[in-house]
Amino acid sequence: MQKSDETESRLKKQFNFLRELDKEKQIGRQTYLADGSRLENDAEHAWHMAVMALFLSEYSNEKIDLLRTIAMILLHDVVEIDAGDTYAYDEEAKKSQADRERQAADRIFGLLPDDQGERFKALWEEFEERKTPEARFARALDNFQPLMLNAASGGKSWEEHHIHLEQVLARNGRSQEGSKELWAYVYEHFIMPSVENGKLESR
Amino acid sequence: MQKSDETESRLKKQFNFLRELDKEKQIGRQTYLADGSRLENDAEHAWHMAVMALFLSEYSNEKIDLLRTIAMILLHDVVEIDAGDTYAYDEEAKKSQADRERQAADRIFGLLPDDQGERFKALWEEFEERKTPEARFARALDNFQPLMLNAASGGKSWEEHHIHLEQVLARNGRSQEGSKELWAYVYEHFIMPSVENGKLESR
Repeated sequence: MQKSDETESRLKKQFNFLRELDKEKQIGRQTYLADGSRLENDAEHAWHMAVMALFLSEYSNEKIDLLRTIAMILLHDVVEIDAGDTYAYDEEAKKSQADRERQAADRIFGLLPDDQGERFKALWEEFEERKTPEARFARALDNFQPLMLNAASGGKSWEEHHIHLEQVLARNGRSQEGSKELWAYVYEHFIMPSVENGKLESR
Repeated sequence: MQKSDETESRLKKQFNFLRELDKEKQIGRQTYLADGSRLENDAEHAWHMAVMALFLSEYSNEKIDLLRTIAMILLHDVVEIDAGDTYAYDEEAKKSQADRERQAADRIFGLLPDDQGERFKALWEEFEERKTPEARFARALDNFQPLMLNAASGGKSWEEHHIHLEQVLARNGRSQEGSKELWAYVYEHFIMPSVENGKLESR
């Protein structure tokens, strides 16, 4: 089949981007797999969140476009290829996080053909800014996925980092904006049991 | 917030399923990451394929519903939680693959509330049967994603398993049904260079 030079050049950019994203599989997070055997990485986290969106979208407070939500989720951590994972409870690293991530977004989405680069960088910004129903639901799942795994592993990561209930509640201060119903379930089934068994400290 | 018993029971089933899927992160495949450092797993593979669908859907031969395609991709390997990964070039294991995978689908999708279980098991079957435009495109990406990584790692997996060009071409016998344009690109840029440098054997 004959391909035009234009298509060839477009595909080259797209595959450069897709190959670059392979690096997300090597960015470690602070959350253990459900069985506690090892920490998970960014690619696994994004996949798990996307599956959660697929099965839990009925609980979004607001009507959402599920494809836009899932696209946002699949890409929300690409900036960590350059900026690294910033642990949710590392207050020092969080100060420089926004700048580091913005530069990363410019470089990584810049690998794509201009039309796709602009469109998906805007989608990444939308997630960060939490200004749309899709972003609010996606951001809530970004918190609920590690809460589900932490509970499954018996609070292993919380115990290791001496995390307090107050920190988890502060981190989830806006999770209810995505889904009140899911937050109520998560609070009762994933957070409180770890307080009761002492893995999550409570002052 | 007060939740009804019905919602509580529905959420419990949904989270049982979502937690069960965590096991996909521990199912190893025969494809190395782009840098050759280790083999990838099913969750990483599904995430990478979903991102490919997001950026490459314009090359599908037929018009596709992208959300259905991505849903299919995110879930296409859940059966391997019970049935294990069957290597594309292991002819003996492939004989029992269909039976093992069907039993797995019954159990795993059976964890969900009935409406979701039936709907998503049907979507998994659609992928397997390759009867819709979405399934044909998703199946093509299921082949193209490892081809992209194999080329990036310098044909490492092919070399280790002494794979022949003819096997790769047979495996991709129907890939063109999903996308002629992508197949042409993949053949030229991911397959032929590995033949030329001797990593992919050619009789």
